[in-house]
Amino acid sequence: MNTFGNILRLTTAGESHGPAMTGILDGMPSGVMVDLDSIDRFLTLRAPGHLPGVTSARRDCEHAEILSGMVGGVTTGTPIAFTVANSGARPDDYEHLRHAFRPSHADYTYQAKYGIRDHRGGGRASARETALRVVGGSFAMAALHQAGIEVYAYTSQIGNIRYTGPMDKVVHCPDPYVYSMRCPDAETNDRMEALVRRVAQAGDTIGGIVTGLVTGLPAGIGEPMYDKLQAMLASAMMSINAAKGFDYGMGFDGATRLGSEMNDEFVIGPHGEITTRTNYSGGIQGGISNGRAIYFRVAFKPIATLMRPTPTVTDSGERVILPARGRHDACCVPRAVAVVHCMTALTILDAYLMAKAGHI
Amino acid sequence: MNTFGNILRLTTAGESHGPAMTGILDGMPSGVMVDLDSIDRFLTLRAPGHLPGVTSARRDCEHAEILSGMVGGVTTGTPIAFTVANSGARPDDYEHLRHAFRPSHADYTYQAKYGIRDHRGGGRASARETALRVVGGSFAMAALHQAGIEVYAYTSQIGNIRYTGPMDKVVHCPDPYVYSMRCPDAETNDRMEALVRRVAQAGDTIGGIVTGLVTGLPAGIGEPMYDKLQAMLASAMMSINAAKGFDYGMGFDGATRLGSEMNDEFVIGPHGEITTRTNYSGGIQGGISNGRAIYFRVAFKPIATLMRPTPTVTDSGERVILPARGRHDACCVPRAVAVVHCMTALTILDAYLMAKAGHI
Amino acid sequence: MNTFGNILRLTTAGESHGPAMTGILDGMPSGVMVDLDSIDRFLTLRAPGHLPGVTSARRDCEHAEILSGMVGGVTTGTPIAFTVANSGARPDDYEHLRHAFRPSHADYTYQAKYGIRDHRGGGRASARETALRVVGGSFAMAALHQAGIEVYAYTSQIGNIRYTGPMDKVVHCPDPYVYSMRCPDAETNDRMEALVRRVAQAGDTIGGIVTGLVTGLPAGIGEPMYDKLQAMLASAMMSINAAKGFDYGMGFDGATRLGSEMNDEFVIGPHGEITTRTNYSGGIQGGISNGRAIYFRVAFKPIATLMRPTPTVTDSGERVILPARGRHDACCVPRAVAVVHCMTALTILDAYLMAKAGHI
Amino acid sequence: MNTFGNILRLTTAGESHGPAMTGILDGMPSGVMVDLDSIDRFLTLRAPGHLPGVTSARRDCEHAEILSGMVGGVTTGTPIAFTVANSGARPDDYEHLRHAFRPSHADYTYQAKYGIRDHRGGGRASARETALRVVGGSFAMAALHQAGIEVYAYTSQIGNIRYTGPMDKVVHCPDPYVYSMRCPDAETNDRMEALVRRVAQAGDTIGGIVTGLVTGLPAGIGEPMYDKLQAMLASAMMSINAAKGFDYGMGFDGATRLGSEMNDEFVIGPHGEITTRTNYSGGIQGGISNGRAIYFRVAFKPIATLMRPTPTVTDSGERVILPARGRHDACCVPRAVAVVHCMTALTILDAYLMAKAGHI
Repeated sequence: MNTFGNILRLTTAGESHGPAMTGILDGMPSGVMVDLDSIDRFLTLRAPGHLPGVTSARRDCEHAEILSGMVGGVTTGTPIAFTVANSGARPDDYEHLRHAFRPSHADYTYQAKYGIRDHRGGGRASARETALRVVGGSFAMAALHQAGIEVYAYTSQIGNIRYTGPMDKVVHCPDPYVYSMRCPDAETNDRMEALVRRVAQAGDTIGGIVTGLVTGLPAGIGEPMYDKLQAMLASAMMSINAAKGFDYGMGFDGATRLGSEMNDEFVIGPHGEITTRTNYSGGIQGGISNGRAIYFRVAFKPIATLMRPTPTVTDSGERVILPARGRHDACCVPRAVAVVHCMTALTILDAYLMAKAGHI
Repeated sequence: MNTFGNILRLTTAGESHGPAMTGILDGMPSGVMVDLDSIDRFLTLRAPGHLPGVTSARRDCEHAEILSGMVGGVTTGTPIAFTVANSGARPDDYEHLRHAFRPSHADYTYQAKYGIRDHRGGGRASARETALRVVGGSFAMAALHQAGIEVYAYTSQIGNIRYTGPMDKVVHCPDPYVYSMRCPDAETNDRMEALVRRVAQAGDTIGGIVTGLVTGLPAGIGEPMYDKLQAMLASAMMSINAAKGFDYGMGFDGATRLGSEMNDEFVIGPHGEITTRTNYSGGIQGGISNGRAIYFRVAFKPIATLMRPTPTVTDSGERVILPARGRHDACCVPRAVAVVHCMTALTILDAYLMAKAGHI
Repeated sequence: MNTFGNILRLTTAGESHGPAMTGILDGMPSGVMVDLDSIDRFLTLRAPGHLPGVTSARRDCEHAEILSGMVGGVTTGTPIAFTVANSGARPDDYEHLRHAFRPSHADYTYQAKYGIRDHRGGGRASARETALRVVGGSFAMAALHQAGIEVYAYTSQIGNIRYTGPMDKVVHCPDPYVYSMRCPDAETNDRMEALVRRVAQAGDTIGGIVTGLVTGLPAGIGEPMYDKLQAMLASAMMSINAAKGFDYGMGFDGATRLGSEMNDEFVIGPHGEITTRTNYSGGIQGGISNGRAIYFRVAFKPIATLMRPTPTVTDSGERVILPARGRHDACCVPRAVAVVHCMTALTILDAYLMAKAGHI
Repeated sequence: MNTFGNILRLTTAGESHGPAMTGILDGMPSGVMVDLDSIDRFLTLRAPGHLPGVTSARRDCEHAEILSGMVGGVTTGTPIAFTVANSGARPDDYEHLRHAFRPSHADYTYQAKYGIRDHRGGGRASARETALRVVGGSFAMAALHQAGIEVYAYTSQIGNIRYTGPMDKVVHCPDPYVYSMRCPDAETNDRMEALVRRVAQAGDTIGGIVTGLVTGLPAGIGEPMYDKLQAMLASAMMSINAAKGFDYGMGFDGATRLGSEMNDEFVIGPHGEITTRTNYSGGIQGGISNGRAIYFRVAFKPIATLMRPTPTVTDSGERVILPARGRHDACCVPRAVAVVHCMTALTILDAYLMAKAGHI
């Protein structure tokens, strides 16, 4: 299924080298003002070719064309269709991949599933699809903002270089997109950039971690059983290309801890409200938000395409060597930040709307 | 929503201290032979009170009563309803929790969401619900087995004690349920057990990690976009009580690696088939199985209920101290193994049936 | 799929001759007071054996056992599981049907679909399943009532005897269940009863029509495209055993009319509100309620089981004559009234809750 | 929700006077050859302005632009995005409708639901949306044809003029689109056309009935409970603009019949197969196909827009007279034939694929 969400549903279509990517966002509340220029700016931030460690040839000019669902800059409640054109597609770049399966790509599994595939640029499996998630997520952010809820995402690790700020609040730069690696701390960002440049010069690639953060979400949002808020977020994040892991709150670190180190004691807050002294839980208990910030991490593997000759096999079982070419980043993590950001917004707005349906 | 799955759907209901837990498994293929006695044995393995580090009072005798969907020991394709009775419920044990919110439990968030809650034993949020997942998952395992697909799960870490066997094959004991901690290596299991006993004596609790493994799944299973096989597994695992993280293949470790260290080179296998030399990917590419074993990890936090007096607040904002009582494990990980096991079976059978629907 | 609804979801299981029928109602709002005794009374009204034209042997005593989701007579928002026991099941009554396919029953199609079937009393295809819809619908009625919305259903036609009162308001008896045929006009009811008695004496059966009516539903409820309110109602009604047709507003009669005869002119109502002079539309425009009463008809075919010897074939292609026996009504329409009633309540509450999810 | 279907899902977006209508068809099996020219021809058949009884100004040239999901004229299994441009939109034609609610249109209900609406040409509620259903349905027809399943639709009644051929087989013209009214009998078609011309001259409109027919569907397709094949068809048909009723098999006529007149006796067919002597049931029992032809009727009301001055009210409660203008058919039934045709194909392919998912 190419649809994400329950009440708020993003359906996407399109291959990286077709005429355009197409998305339909359904279930968007009416009456939300959306700045279409800011969507294009955000789309361009996600696009490859703007970061260090990438061949400069690919520098897409991104624009989302909105085909329905808005009147006078405001959503009408009807579905919002949009396209993002695929510029710069050069199909003959991919002729050598018509029969060969690139290692750790989806070429082989698509062939196994469908018996046919579009071999150009990864076809449907290309990260190009995430442009549509950015458009959809931008609409969600506008609605959440109207409800006092904000979403953030930033690079918290590349290789072994870690951002060490607190996870449950926004510190350092509130807009990490101003930095090349999308890390909110300038000095750490510089060290990450230097690492990515070294890796790129070696024709190699490297992985990392993106952190997501939600503030302003009231207590009581999320479903208690199979659609726990953390299950919805995990599903959303693991649907992103190259994502290999998800945790929230203390996450994997919590596996080594004692219970006495991790309980979030309830206290009475400054305005007489019930809150917690600490936030080891990551803002969720029993699948439902508790009013504290939600934070989580998403691990990304290194990009599989190396700038080196690569041995593999073809669909007829022949051994071939793929030459080193193409236009690829040495690290997908900075680009993944916008995608994590937008998938978080889609997930949280969906959960928020589901909660509305729970009361007569 | 209290339903899990797309084609194969498990719907559950019931609170820990009501008369019974109720489940309906819908979409189960017809003609599958299911051994109901083995389900009861598996249910009992999941139950508390059988492991070291737990007050002995609670030792439920577990039995799933099947109310529909079978004729002569075989599934008919109609929905399978079942109940698991709640024995040993002592509601007055919970009178002190009528108004108090236990820290890092779901008491407060249920109250925020619904404005009302069943305070006895965690109500709907109790891990008691997972008994129904074990019943449903047992049916799924029977169907998968008939198709040559097997699912395994075991404890791979408690605190800092790690099982160090390979993740993508079954080694040591093929049935980890024979060991107290569900770790397949006897010596590691003993060290884990000793740790849990020490923690329990201190009135504390400790977390850990469960590993899941699927073998025999053919290439081509899984949806390519938002229902990627890893997204379905992540959602399933993060819906389990106390689960805080999920990763698959190289997972979080991959965030620190170079691409050149992690590509799974395609090769021609012993029977002329296309396979990969290594399995860093964890058996999935682009959301679709590649024919290799699928493996993943699920991190669990320590149980929140400590055997110590606990300060908290009530729903009227009063500060109280909850006394140290109740009947609780010092480590939920060994019990979680059966739940991870069964949620994996439900997820994989669902994906397998979805793939059937993809062809005319 | 054995689940009905989107936000409010009723999942059912059970065969007519198993130990019990099982239902789970999920998505029910919290805080709704529900009178369980009235549910049992309503269940008994639906049961066979209470109406003229039926062998008196089958007179089930109906009781819904609630297993979860309520505290102190009030819903908690968690799923409500319930069972209705199957009393009086005599499996050997059905031995002659183990291999034979009854005409115009689902015996043959279940065999074709599943390769196996429970031949006793229609198995899963039995109208016994509708008892669960009555329980679920009773909960929905309680929630709707709390929101000022009321649902009615009554017999409007049996054979060629028609109730001729207005369709969009409640006239004559507001509780048609006090009459044997569930027709709100005593005199018409008597003529219907006389007809059914005559048909029963001839060993035959006869069809009819049930009318449904919803009042108090505010304007703006219903989805505008594929889940139009009339599409949801049609789907709900056509899922009832023996239902063969659905129309709303002027319905099939409208096919022969001119547009100038049927437009509902907008006018200003007595309280300054916008309303319509007439209600030919049946309270819905473009799939969305307009604030007027919703009314619709559901056509039921005659029951297929006659009290006559019936020629048919077996699963091995042998010709056999089924003897005239069993315990069956001569007309299902009076019993169908409660089912139409309850399916309407489930549909309208679902649509009402979906509308809640449409706004930030 | 703007998505139709379970496994095969058509999602649509677009208003009648925006730049284009957009659809995404997801779940389409791979390897189906589709003739895009024939889709455009079919689209043009559906468009207004080609039939008698319509102002000639509106004669759209229809073309579906396919943006993804195909390679070399064959489906790849990935989602198929397409747009149909809106030519001839003249927004200022609709300025007089900015505040007025046309009677028996969706203007008022959209305003009630969303608090905002696109008033031009009915916006989202326009029948223009059905162009997308025609494109989606054409893909479904290609897949069904490959499986030996054929779908037909034709006009069986306009006003009181009825086509009297048998309902469960194709007689007279197998391609009713060659006739102006889409009635397969030339003489009846002529009488219908004459009626529509008379009605149009009077500035009025008239309703009618479309019959749908499915042949070649094997026994065993359809879900037994809430997604009965007739429930899926009813929901699909009642989602079409102006549809007011649905019945199948003997339908509403069956309400007046005796059971002894309507049972479909099982017999052994010419090839030793189990079949039925008659087909009163309409090819479905217990929600599942029995191998016989499926046939059903869909009632359409007269178009609400008359070529006469029309009194109504505005959103501020003012009384106004809408002038007689616009470009409208006097009878929507001939155009509805293609929509019934395509919605049937989408429904049947969806059910067919769901049945595939039922077996391990």
